[in-house]
Amino acid sequence: MPLQDDMKIISVDDHVIEHPRVWQDRLADKDKELGPQIIEDDQGHHVWKYEGDLFPQLGLNAVAGKDPHEYGMDPVRYDHMIPGCYDPKERVKDMDIDGVQAALCFPSFPGFGGGVFIRAKDKALAHNCVKAWNDWQLDEWCAYAPDRLIPLGLLPAWDPALAAKEVQRLAERGTKAVSFPDAPVPLGLPSFHEPGHWDVLWDACEAADMPVCLHFGSGGFVPGFSFGGAAPDPNVPFVVAIGIFATNSMWSLSDMVFSGMLQRHPNLKIMLSEGGIGWLPYMSERLDYTWERHRWYQPISKTDRPSDLIRKHFWGCYIDDIHGIANRYTIGVEKILVEVDYPHSDSNWPNSRKRIAESLVDVPDDEAAMIVEHNARNLMNFRL
Amino acid sequence: MPLQDDMKIISVDDHVIEHPRVWQDRLADKDKELGPQIIEDDQGHHVWKYEGDLFPQLGLNAVAGKDPHEYGMDPVRYDHMIPGCYDPKERVKDMDIDGVQAALCFPSFPGFGGGVFIRAKDKALAHNCVKAWNDWQLDEWCAYAPDRLIPLGLLPAWDPALAAKEVQRLAERGTKAVSFPDAPVPLGLPSFHEPGHWDVLWDACEAADMPVCLHFGSGGFVPGFSFGGAAPDPNVPFVVAIGIFATNSMWSLSDMVFSGMLQRHPNLKIMLSEGGIGWLPYMSERLDYTWERHRWYQPISKTDRPSDLIRKHFWGCYIDDIHGIANRYTIGVEKILVEVDYPHSDSNWPNSRKRIAESLVDVPDDEAAMIVEHNARNLMNFRL
Repeated sequence: MPLQDDMKIISVDDHVIEHPRVWQDRLADKDKELGPQIIEDDQGHHVWKYEGDLFPQLGLNAVAGKDPHEYGMDPVRYDHMIPGCYDPKERVKDMDIDGVQAALCFPSFPGFGGGVFIRAKDKALAHNCVKAWNDWQLDEWCAYAPDRLIPLGLLPAWDPALAAKEVQRLAERGTKAVSFPDAPVPLGLPSFHEPGHWDVLWDACEAADMPVCLHFGSGGFVPGFSFGGAAPDPNVPFVVAIGIFATNSMWSLSDMVFSGMLQRHPNLKIMLSEGGIGWLPYMSERLDYTWERHRWYQPISKTDRPSDLIRKHFWGCYIDDIHGIANRYTIGVEKILVEVDYPHSDSNWPNSRKRIAESLVDVPDDEAAMIVEHNARNLMNFRL
Repeated sequence: MPLQDDMKIISVDDHVIEHPRVWQDRLADKDKELGPQIIEDDQGHHVWKYEGDLFPQLGLNAVAGKDPHEYGMDPVRYDHMIPGCYDPKERVKDMDIDGVQAALCFPSFPGFGGGVFIRAKDKALAHNCVKAWNDWQLDEWCAYAPDRLIPLGLLPAWDPALAAKEVQRLAERGTKAVSFPDAPVPLGLPSFHEPGHWDVLWDACEAADMPVCLHFGSGGFVPGFSFGGAAPDPNVPFVVAIGIFATNSMWSLSDMVFSGMLQRHPNLKIMLSEGGIGWLPYMSERLDYTWERHRWYQPISKTDRPSDLIRKHFWGCYIDDIHGIANRYTIGVEKILVEVDYPHSDSNWPNSRKRIAESLVDVPDDEAAMIVEHNARNLMNFRL
């Protein structure tokens, strides 16, 4: 059946490309010179300059509306993007065309989980940059249309106590979710298993009822045998990595499930952003099987079944996942969300609503309403 | 329904622990000193010595028959293992107890894909070691019970032409499948994408109708954010990696599917050994979606859909995979095999037949017969 008109699509994974003055408009004078700013390089590309380093903007991150024949990985200029990438007024128009009610938008220049600031040399400057991004989301991006754009926050994750404070500040300001690296380790941070290290942050997320988004790739780890190592192999096409990015989400899941952190934070809510859902039944079963056999000699819970922890703490989202929707009762209908991924290459813009409706053609109305709208509103406390 | 008595279980993933004299009995005198031999270290463990380096035997690799409470990763002695680990006569008795008709057994000391020899300094010696292992499988291990133990071969994969010759020799001697690293890159070998590099080997496998097994982990890559990198994190329990080893198989799949090698070798048959099956529907769909969007600018086939290549070229196996069996029509009943994993920790010995029967309780007899027996016999040309 078609999606009923009263079902509004809430996308939990879209992207925003920061306009050139996000930081220059907000940083104190002393921070402006080293803070992020757009310059034009000698090839005419718009690139970010931050702490003296240059960061190109990949064209693949702004392909909404292009024919796949025109996709490419070359750097781009703002005037090569459709304005919905960076202008909230134009974004909302594009969402109207796409049949999408509301969207949670991840950063571009900072990395999906703020990795650029986590790696930065000057951590006081980086902290100010994180807060500037968060304020820009609230005061400029989402303020334009509070019922359409859902505020997401970044964290100064290099310092869990500072990150906990930012969660509290964001909660008071109305932010609905925070983005945390899917893997702190490749960013040089302690793992989820490090005793005591992250608890102050998870405490704050629980206290604020703030869901934590782990967007695949946000830890800077690219999956694939020829990408993670020292020297990328130019013979290996990047499509190999694009196809398997969900394995990052599987790794994050196994990490968290066996870390003990979920038992210490029974109200923590985790979204596996852009990770798909069709693999969840296999992985839940596999982690259970592994736990059954190895729990006695490994330093893990002897009592808590991984699939129970997964069903309690994790939410997944999909763009197009026939297998996942067919197996929605195994996953849990209440744990499934939808995403649109505008303006990235996975997006179906301007046909997102049409494609999501097709994906739900065999799903009863009440379940479809949960998947496209109510699960996301409940998880993020995003209501009118 | 229970498994019918005339359905014989063919396990395509078991393990053998080489007895102390496998190489010393076969190597020429000049190779014996540096070739693999068992010594007793100062803690009383039996360890392999090869080219002057020591290789402990992990206890986790010989736990068949132990209660999970007794599992551990400490090194072991032969007299701590049940003799079925290394003695074919005892192995067949254990298979009788387990209700298993026949088994394909992967190496232990050499690594599942012969990685120890691929990394070796003296490649002439390594080549002789590979041939010695292969001859031992044929002449001693499998010769004891040719209808019960299925000959597997290793390859001198550092030299594709030499490996191709070994495939031909093995085919003439009756070997039924060869083991190749799931990832050549972590072993310092070129990727599956390297133009022309591996074609001579895949040609030989096609010509001999010799299936290629990619056993997860055989490339020496351990999945997980805290394992693959420079310094393993002692706070991260190894169970995190055990739970997600199938992501290695997913990576191998994406690599091969986008490499072009399958189109150049239309008769090549690949087994994803120990990789499970429940994730295959998700991953096939995801690789299709990725291909739809990125094929035009990436150096990959514009015409060949990944799911078609997967259905044609790949076989998967499972021990316990409720989700995979429930979705067997999506995977292809003809592409599913079973495994027992004796004497490793995933094994259900002595209850393998009982557990496999339970996994097939809702499956019609003709499909169950394919999954437990006929698919494996057809794939490996293993008939009486």
